[in-house]
Amino acid sequence: MIRVGIVGGTGYTGVELLRILALHNEVEVAVVTSRSDDGMRVDALYPNLRGTIDVCFSKPDLESLASCDVVFFATPNGTAMLMAEQLLARNVKVIDLSADFRIKDVTEWAKWYGMEHACPDLIADAVYGLPEVNRDEIKQANLLACPGCYPTAVQLGFLPLIEQGLINHQHLIADVKSGVSGAGRSAQVLSLMSEAGESFKAYASTGHRHLPEISQGLSIAAKEQVGLTFVPHLVPMIRGIHATLYARLKTDSAAELQALYEQRYADELFVDVLPKGVHPDTRNVKGSNNCQISIVVPQGGDTVVILSVIDNLVKGAAGQAVQNMNLMFGLAENSGLQTVALYP
Amino acid sequence: MIRVGIVGGTGYTGVELLRILALHNEVEVAVVTSRSDDGMRVDALYPNLRGTIDVCFSKPDLESLASCDVVFFATPNGTAMLMAEQLLARNVKVIDLSADFRIKDVTEWAKWYGMEHACPDLIADAVYGLPEVNRDEIKQANLLACPGCYPTAVQLGFLPLIEQGLINHQHLIADVKSGVSGAGRSAQVLSLMSEAGESFKAYASTGHRHLPEISQGLSIAAKEQVGLTFVPHLVPMIRGIHATLYARLKTDSAAELQALYEQRYADELFVDVLPKGVHPDTRNVKGSNNCQISIVVPQGGDTVVILSVIDNLVKGAAGQAVQNMNLMFGLAENSGLQTVALYP
Amino acid sequence: MIRVGIVGGTGYTGVELLRILALHNEVEVAVVTSRSDDGMRVDALYPNLRGTIDVCFSKPDLESLASCDVVFFATPNGTAMLMAEQLLARNVKVIDLSADFRIKDVTEWAKWYGMEHACPDLIADAVYGLPEVNRDEIKQANLLACPGCYPTAVQLGFLPLIEQGLINHQHLIADVKSGVSGAGRSAQVLSLMSEAGESFKAYASTGHRHLPEISQGLSIAAKEQVGLTFVPHLVPMIRGIHATLYARLKTDSAAELQALYEQRYADELFVDVLPKGVHPDTRNVKGSNNCQISIVVPQGGDTVVILSVIDNLVKGAAGQAVQNMNLMFGLAENSGLQTVALYP
Amino acid sequence: MIRVGIVGGTGYTGVELLRILALHNEVEVAVVTSRSDDGMRVDALYPNLRGTIDVCFSKPDLESLASCDVVFFATPNGTAMLMAEQLLARNVKVIDLSADFRIKDVTEWAKWYGMEHACPDLIADAVYGLPEVNRDEIKQANLLACPGCYPTAVQLGFLPLIEQGLINHQHLIADVKSGVSGAGRSAQVLSLMSEAGESFKAYASTGHRHLPEISQGLSIAAKEQVGLTFVPHLVPMIRGIHATLYARLKTDSAAELQALYEQRYADELFVDVLPKGVHPDTRNVKGSNNCQISIVVPQGGDTVVILSVIDNLVKGAAGQAVQNMNLMFGLAENSGLQTVALYP
Repeated sequence: MIRVGIVGGTGYTGVELLRILALHNEVEVAVVTSRSDDGMRVDALYPNLRGTIDVCFSKPDLESLASCDVVFFATPNGTAMLMAEQLLARNVKVIDLSADFRIKDVTEWAKWYGMEHACPDLIADAVYGLPEVNRDEIKQANLLACPGCYPTAVQLGFLPLIEQGLINHQHLIADVKSGVSGAGRSAQVLSLMSEAGESFKAYASTGHRHLPEISQGLSIAAKEQVGLTFVPHLVPMIRGIHATLYARLKTDSAAELQALYEQRYADELFVDVLPKGVHPDTRNVKGSNNCQISIVVPQGGDTVVILSVIDNLVKGAAGQAVQNMNLMFGLAENSGLQTVALYP
Repeated sequence: MIRVGIVGGTGYTGVELLRILALHNEVEVAVVTSRSDDGMRVDALYPNLRGTIDVCFSKPDLESLASCDVVFFATPNGTAMLMAEQLLARNVKVIDLSADFRIKDVTEWAKWYGMEHACPDLIADAVYGLPEVNRDEIKQANLLACPGCYPTAVQLGFLPLIEQGLINHQHLIADVKSGVSGAGRSAQVLSLMSEAGESFKAYASTGHRHLPEISQGLSIAAKEQVGLTFVPHLVPMIRGIHATLYARLKTDSAAELQALYEQRYADELFVDVLPKGVHPDTRNVKGSNNCQISIVVPQGGDTVVILSVIDNLVKGAAGQAVQNMNLMFGLAENSGLQTVALYP
Repeated sequence: MIRVGIVGGTGYTGVELLRILALHNEVEVAVVTSRSDDGMRVDALYPNLRGTIDVCFSKPDLESLASCDVVFFATPNGTAMLMAEQLLARNVKVIDLSADFRIKDVTEWAKWYGMEHACPDLIADAVYGLPEVNRDEIKQANLLACPGCYPTAVQLGFLPLIEQGLINHQHLIADVKSGVSGAGRSAQVLSLMSEAGESFKAYASTGHRHLPEISQGLSIAAKEQVGLTFVPHLVPMIRGIHATLYARLKTDSAAELQALYEQRYADELFVDVLPKGVHPDTRNVKGSNNCQISIVVPQGGDTVVILSVIDNLVKGAAGQAVQNMNLMFGLAENSGLQTVALYP
Repeated sequence: MIRVGIVGGTGYTGVELLRILALHNEVEVAVVTSRSDDGMRVDALYPNLRGTIDVCFSKPDLESLASCDVVFFATPNGTAMLMAEQLLARNVKVIDLSADFRIKDVTEWAKWYGMEHACPDLIADAVYGLPEVNRDEIKQANLLACPGCYPTAVQLGFLPLIEQGLINHQHLIADVKSGVSGAGRSAQVLSLMSEAGESFKAYASTGHRHLPEISQGLSIAAKEQVGLTFVPHLVPMIRGIHATLYARLKTDSAAELQALYEQRYADELFVDVLPKGVHPDTRNVKGSNNCQISIVVPQGGDTVVILSVIDNLVKGAAGQAVQNMNLMFGLAENSGLQTVALYP
């Protein structure tokens, strides 16, 4: 059994990790930390876990975390970078669901996240945890940077086209829509049901923190700096991300794009290329670790449209983190992740 | 492996059965019938099942169904009663999720369901599948009548009080609220999002078909005919039932009610009595087979209020049907049902 | 033109007052206070008001408020009682949408609201602003206590039966459901869309602050102390209250109840008794000042069920406040309130 | 008083017309037709209209419609073209909210709408009712083609840039999101709350019927054929459209775009250019005839992003139809349309 610690177990990515790990046969959830809820039973805060998780929240403490084989950080940005070094020194693997180790350029990171990085030396060692790109490195990783939710949906959508050099890289457009759980469990007016319900809007259109992460990933694949316009939107639903991606085709072979995607993801357990003509729907991945993708070339023109959906809390966060853990510990990649999306 | 057939696999209880059975280790889904979608892959209609269910819909056919060990009817009322006898004659167990075999009084059944019963002789043999009441009979059953969603939530809420004779039986009130998936997947104006969304209403207040089923169950426990006012309401959400139950206490021992409920359900895997002071929330059972219950005596008066929540498609339909199947085949009662509710 | 001041213009009752008053022909909105948003244009916070309200928030200030003919308090409980006396002394009428002047028994008020009352001497002068009960007193009022949202829906539902002595007063049950805007615009975890959306629960079942207000109103009508069980619930929608009321009939004349309600409210502009057999739906009063009511006696028994719906922010708050203002200033009772509910 | 007839009064655009016209001081709603609900009171189907609309549905009948000054068609496509000629011959003005007279190229119309046009001769006389473009022609019109919902939001967003020649016309992208009321009140599985709720998807990505209408409008403004990729999406909310529009700037003067839009729409009562940095939110136009627009140039690049929101049933249908009627009859353009959006 792998002993697992979770730092920051009270947010939505934390409780989603608990939901998944509660039924993972090779894992024991040993430590769940929360400063504010120290001593409270985890299932008192989250009654959906009653009967499956029998631990209490504790204050974050190096010794108890060091007794684990792996520690997940489901914390706000800026926390994991304060503790990762000590845990790694104690031979504990670290999986960070926050943004602390995602961006390789520390100056860029500091600009977007508004703080100095506390352990810049570790950034180079951190492996970016998108298994469909980095599986081999992930298997060897001790420090894993789990991708953001928007970056997962956008990269999985664009990658086959970019890897094959089929599109113009300078004018990529990602029009992406997220459910409100992406804003987390913090008490903010804009996340109130009376504010976010029954309404739709764009936000952060002048620059969202996930922009440099997406650009970094796509630029590595393109082997040149890509140009990307990324506009996130808030959808009046709880879970789900839908990315609508636009690019200019450099090829006349629009007909072969379907086969290209199917081949690219043929061996991937969690990326599902839908049959031609089927639109992905976020509900069909709700609660599962799947990404479903469709390819369209409207009116046979030179603009390709990719539709890519994930559950932001699963493939966009906790599920992908467990997928990475499975790879890091040599388990079957889908251990604990064999769920079916809840429909309706 | 138990070979399973599902008649009427295109409705919400059908797809929910498929979601649960897809991950049930001791079951093979062999036949899924649908007249309208004959020949279509099941996962073409329900893309959430892609990768887990590899069958096509077929027309309902006695021979193929007779090759199964058990056949579930996830059909409109009036269908199971036409096929049950033939299947039982072929030694196939039958689990009916519709109302055909729930009511013992066939005249009463005909009055509420607006048709003649096609095989009244079987009614006496049918076992009412509420495991918390009838577990031993269920284990022996060949024909199982799976309870309705409202009746499950209401009976589990009222039973401990009635069994102990602690309340007046003549003026029971069940104010019950259901998500819209309870109305099924048929195309009706009143189930449109524009009609049912962002609104709340009572319906069928002069008499809902689940009234005689609830009365029957409570009357058996009370050993006398109970008097029940049952008002169902439609909630602008997809899944979930919340029953708010009111009764007049005959006892002064309000303080002991919490312990009574805890003892009554101590050995039940799927009924969870919440700690005193915690209100059940339908989200905490979403996608799971759990019923969560709270007991309140407001202002220390003589009116007791019971709050009981289930997922109408799981404990209120498909999950309870699988729980019954497990009992009928001697499997662990929670096989395939060890899920955690999706939150948020 | 009546000069209007609004203290606490940033909450949902405040913005709803602004929405209604913006189109009221005989009113000028002169002062809108907010400590936190002092100096900001009102329509910068609420872009739905662009083009109709041309004022900035200002700090609450006696002199500017004293220049008004009437001041509405759309504040948390405990604020109006600090300023009412000074405004009344300056001949400014006061309409309080909070609970400060609703309860006549100051000890009871202090118990439920958890503070000492700051001006108990004014309580006796305050008129309870339910026009369907108190119209004549309201016309003479200088200090008006606007009813709570739950109390409005429950009292309008029960009053005809109580006034005629047709029900047992000792075991009234009010099972009431409210949209989340009732919890206000404050940043609380429980009001987040991820928490309140797609879920349903009861809350405050052991005692909600509106209980003494409802009991007071019903007891006055009954001319004796009534016994009431009141259980509020949270509905995953933004606006609307649905009260389901249960009582034991003392009469055999169930058939006459429809006529009784129609007569009781025949002259009321904002109470609409629906035809027999029609269930009220909260959507049909959304954005309007109407209360729609139905009467049912299920199965011809001795339990009567009353269904009563309002928009909690309109008839349950800002609309009723304007209705009261119209009466206090001798305007047509429906000035500014001739709207049609938004459907769908 | 203008006598108004409405053909097809049972759908969402029909009831929205009724909601607006019920409070329009210069209009009398004389005839409302419905084949299926002939003889039923309009407010029996739509209880939100109780007390404001005192007519019954009648079968469509030329004589009674010919007694009106103007007839609105709130019908499925293909109906208005069968009756328009006769009404015009009787000097009745016709306002068609369906698509019958929107497309000037009748071959193109037949291709997208799948039927022969019944009165092609009238198409040239029909005036396209976007007042911000065609106000003078509208004032003279007898046959008015009211724009579609998507075309209204997209055209108002793109027009200032196209009119000034500031963008490349060959690769316009319109990523547009609509609430489910856009799909109408017909009983379809895909519009069920259990299907459309809590999920997000694109649809008709290979070609939606509003594409030729948008292209026609933009091409007229551009004085050349534009190239447009239009992807509509379904949002789990009832009302509202949000268009996110992307184009390549031909100018370096991004800074002047805000002023350009403000000037373009300075005299428009229903187009509101938001201050720089404010994102439009569909809730802020819910129930009102407003279009709110923002302009963004992310990261100072050469891609401009326009955000444009309307209520699909008001500015996208019934409200714009009344705005056009006001112009056709010489009334104030905002008669009956001075409402404030419902928030929250």
